[in-house]
Amino acid sequence: MATARFKTSSPYTNPPSAAPATNTTTDTSPVAVALIAKKAVYCEKPISDSLEKTGQCYRAAAEANLPLFCAFNRRFDPSYSHIQSQVRAGAVGKIQTIKSVSRDSPIIPLSYIGPSGGIFDDFSVHDIDLLLWVSGDVPVQVFVSGNSQIPEFERHNDFDNMIILLNFKHGALGTIDLNRYSSYGYDQRLEVFGPLGMLHCGQSRPNHLVTSNLDGSVKTPLHYSFPSHYDQAFRNQLNYFVDLVRGRVELSVTEKMTSAVSKVVEACKESADSGLPVKLSWSEEEIPEY
Amino acid sequence: MATARFKTSSPYTNPPSAAPATNTTTDTSPVAVALIAKKAVYCEKPISDSLEKTGQCYRAAAEANLPLFCAFNRRFDPSYSHIQSQVRAGAVGKIQTIKSVSRDSPIIPLSYIGPSGGIFDDFSVHDIDLLLWVSGDVPVQVFVSGNSQIPEFERHNDFDNMIILLNFKHGALGTIDLNRYSSYGYDQRLEVFGPLGMLHCGQSRPNHLVTSNLDGSVKTPLHYSFPSHYDQAFRNQLNYFVDLVRGRVELSVTEKMTSAVSKVVEACKESADSGLPVKLSWSEEEIPEY
Amino acid sequence: MATARFKTSSPYTNPPSAAPATNTTTDTSPVAVALIAKKAVYCEKPISDSLEKTGQCYRAAAEANLPLFCAFNRRFDPSYSHIQSQVRAGAVGKIQTIKSVSRDSPIIPLSYIGPSGGIFDDFSVHDIDLLLWVSGDVPVQVFVSGNSQIPEFERHNDFDNMIILLNFKHGALGTIDLNRYSSYGYDQRLEVFGPLGMLHCGQSRPNHLVTSNLDGSVKTPLHYSFPSHYDQAFRNQLNYFVDLVRGRVELSVTEKMTSAVSKVVEACKESADSGLPVKLSWSEEEIPEY
Amino acid sequence: MATARFKTSSPYTNPPSAAPATNTTTDTSPVAVALIAKKAVYCEKPISDSLEKTGQCYRAAAEANLPLFCAFNRRFDPSYSHIQSQVRAGAVGKIQTIKSVSRDSPIIPLSYIGPSGGIFDDFSVHDIDLLLWVSGDVPVQVFVSGNSQIPEFERHNDFDNMIILLNFKHGALGTIDLNRYSSYGYDQRLEVFGPLGMLHCGQSRPNHLVTSNLDGSVKTPLHYSFPSHYDQAFRNQLNYFVDLVRGRVELSVTEKMTSAVSKVVEACKESADSGLPVKLSWSEEEIPEY
Repeated sequence: MATARFKTSSPYTNPPSAAPATNTTTDTSPVAVALIAKKAVYCEKPISDSLEKTGQCYRAAAEANLPLFCAFNRRFDPSYSHIQSQVRAGAVGKIQTIKSVSRDSPIIPLSYIGPSGGIFDDFSVHDIDLLLWVSGDVPVQVFVSGNSQIPEFERHNDFDNMIILLNFKHGALGTIDLNRYSSYGYDQRLEVFGPLGMLHCGQSRPNHLVTSNLDGSVKTPLHYSFPSHYDQAFRNQLNYFVDLVRGRVELSVTEKMTSAVSKVVEACKESADSGLPVKLSWSEEEIPEY
Repeated sequence: MATARFKTSSPYTNPPSAAPATNTTTDTSPVAVALIAKKAVYCEKPISDSLEKTGQCYRAAAEANLPLFCAFNRRFDPSYSHIQSQVRAGAVGKIQTIKSVSRDSPIIPLSYIGPSGGIFDDFSVHDIDLLLWVSGDVPVQVFVSGNSQIPEFERHNDFDNMIILLNFKHGALGTIDLNRYSSYGYDQRLEVFGPLGMLHCGQSRPNHLVTSNLDGSVKTPLHYSFPSHYDQAFRNQLNYFVDLVRGRVELSVTEKMTSAVSKVVEACKESADSGLPVKLSWSEEEIPEY
Repeated sequence: MATARFKTSSPYTNPPSAAPATNTTTDTSPVAVALIAKKAVYCEKPISDSLEKTGQCYRAAAEANLPLFCAFNRRFDPSYSHIQSQVRAGAVGKIQTIKSVSRDSPIIPLSYIGPSGGIFDDFSVHDIDLLLWVSGDVPVQVFVSGNSQIPEFERHNDFDNMIILLNFKHGALGTIDLNRYSSYGYDQRLEVFGPLGMLHCGQSRPNHLVTSNLDGSVKTPLHYSFPSHYDQAFRNQLNYFVDLVRGRVELSVTEKMTSAVSKVVEACKESADSGLPVKLSWSEEEIPEY
Repeated sequence: MATARFKTSSPYTNPPSAAPATNTTTDTSPVAVALIAKKAVYCEKPISDSLEKTGQCYRAAAEANLPLFCAFNRRFDPSYSHIQSQVRAGAVGKIQTIKSVSRDSPIIPLSYIGPSGGIFDDFSVHDIDLLLWVSGDVPVQVFVSGNSQIPEFERHNDFDNMIILLNFKHGALGTIDLNRYSSYGYDQRLEVFGPLGMLHCGQSRPNHLVTSNLDGSVKTPLHYSFPSHYDQAFRNQLNYFVDLVRGRVELSVTEKMTSAVSKVVEACKESADSGLPVKLSWSEEEIPEY
């Protein structure tokens, strides 16, 4: 991933920025090194694989007065951001059910299965952040059920097919339906249901062609993969990062938010290990202001 | 077609009814015979192939105090009737454009091409009635352009592919896009556009299945033919006819309406023959109260 | 509910039939009484509220050589039956995920909340049968998470908002997302996902009108309630029952199938009580031949 | 409109380029001036308002060995370009009907109505090029019917509501349905029908949100205007122009093509004036190689 540099009148002490190409199983050195080098950090992945290391990075960023931006890309997608603002403005009333679907396409390189950190750290984090951010709430219980349908994932003791059931503090029920491989394209959906109605989005395609013939009426397949599906999201979040470095906007993905995601991920792993639901308790201070 | 009989307290003099299986090229005897036999008449097709004969039938029905019901089936379809009531209630404002598509499936038996009466009398009548009924207006000019893509129709000097362009009295432009054979199923659509927006409907299918695979996302093909597409419409209009015979409802398809359709059909034929636009003038009395 | 009678050359000993208007909380007398009276039975609801009583009814029917038809209406819906045949023919390959949504509209009369038997017996049975029938598989574990969003249900200690997570014997993960009240109409959906693709269906509407204006493009609301949504299903299953009484078809909803549904329902209740996942073991004989 | 400059190893003699902000009613000086200044020309609008002036520009460009690129933006839209390649590859068989809809949003500034050159030169050119390019055919007859629904257009003796009916050389019937103002957003559609089926596209929206409530299921409104609707098309055609200047691609919008569009536009104006269909004859040399 390229390093972007900007001339800027940023309130931050040091304008240059770095976008470490890390993943969560490495130690935090790329982020830490960048911070030590006094660069603003754009981090596509969650900051680290532990709450402790993540905390260290955020403290280092704060001390250096540098932005540390955890770029959860879905928040910058036009459909997801529109659904979030609608939900938070009360379009469905008090949320009763919130559900996401994430099916990857194509399958990740088999050599990446191990280094990816597994379905929890590499994949579920995005959906977990999405549900917390859209609902503005945190789960008090999670229950995970998963298995491996593809031998290569099984060999790594990694699920490729998984459902997470979440009970949110304010009563919403949530599900996250994850699959590491969708043959019909990159499938990302979100649905929020409440007493006033339902919002949902998903299934974007590279063009709007419909072919009607003996087989039926056929829409163009879904985007093949995330770069085209989230093309607009990636452009939006890069623009956002430029604004961030220039001091035009506040950091919208806070340490509390990334920490909350990590906490839920840990509880999910524990549920997957034990086969039992896992409770989460939250201090007032831990709960992010979404 | 079966003859239905009803015990009734109808205001009409004679309850029994007949549904003549006619087409417009035969003389009017089936309708006339039924009326002479003192039966209420349910006629799927336009009453006759000439304004004069049609007028005779309506006069005979009036004299016998019998309902003569020209069952334009689309008026009884839930989508079309909903669009009509919405349009007439002002949902799009003053109509600027009104367009229908009618593509038949399967192709009619080749032996029926001649006896059918041709694309004008057998086929376009439904769309012409639809546009007049939905707009509540009559055309002051029509222009027809058509040709034969299928040799069997060409041999009968009949179009199988045709577009009618209509200029309505109150300024709306209309098109009717007709085809005698659609390989992808029975395709019936209507669109109405005005300053406040657009209404459209169409493309009903026997089930709601969507299959997503490498080819795309495939909806079940359209209904194969009119009996399944207009299943609800046929049930509705039969119920309506029962109500009509029993005197519970007024005749909604009046002589003026069927006469107006016939007049427009004649102008369309004239335009097809001459290759030129044809003007229509309407006396106040001729214009139906839609 | 009306009692239908048919003259018939049925292989069953006694043609007359009964359709007991029961619910699962009453004892089985309506079904039993009908069988004692030597009538074929059409039972919209599951046969009884216990495996034992259900077994007694089936034995009584067998002894009397009478059909006892548990009319799971969704099996007769054109979309669901098409999805089932496609799935079973291998359209998605080995099932990885199967998910249903059932949101009721309008809310049941508040006086019926208690007598209905609760969300498990009155409501979840349909979705449980659907998932077993479509997948051709049985769950080896269920986990239930639910709550009451509406005070009247809470007062009856009944959930109105609930998710069931199922682990099927052959590896599929399933979810059933239930809600007792959907303000936007009667919402019934099914999705099946596997290595070859995805099938889904749902969201039928009373007409095909789309209105485009400043607010967006608006489809007609979903059916208001089950009678219109399942209109075709009800007609299909009544025809099926006539064929059944006349001996033209085999009983497709067998005792093993209704028993399997009851067994899963019991496990769901146990999970709801304990807050823990519940395992199910199945003898070879218990597993239905779907 | 900005002037883009590129460092290049172009086969053309002079790399700098110009994008004249012209419209068809001005004389051709912006294009001519740019060519005299030895710049490659990117011209969003048709080259000029007459075949003669257009020919002069193309000759000047050829003499100077400079590309003169008439950027019909729809050709660079992913949906339209996909439909074109599918149609030309035989997806529908021999074309029977080809239809486009173009409804503008918002209304053009009233002060621009006169200078725009009117609905024919400013607006219909895009749809005419689209139908010729997709069908690979030219019309042998056109018939125009239009009127003014908005007083400001009437005052300029300009239609704002218009339908063009085209008869193509190889038998296809075509319609172009144009409106200067659509209150529900920028609506651009294309449909191609033949013996093997139908292709259609249209109605893109800024996000994929669907809101279901008492009013129905509401999709986000169409794009408000052309810059967002054709965002991808504009980026594609700018990239194409860079490639053109650099000599990596051949000019795909040829003089014959822009001349053919101009010829059809002239015939349409003649039909609007006379109220009669107008024939077009084409020499072999005039017909573009689409």
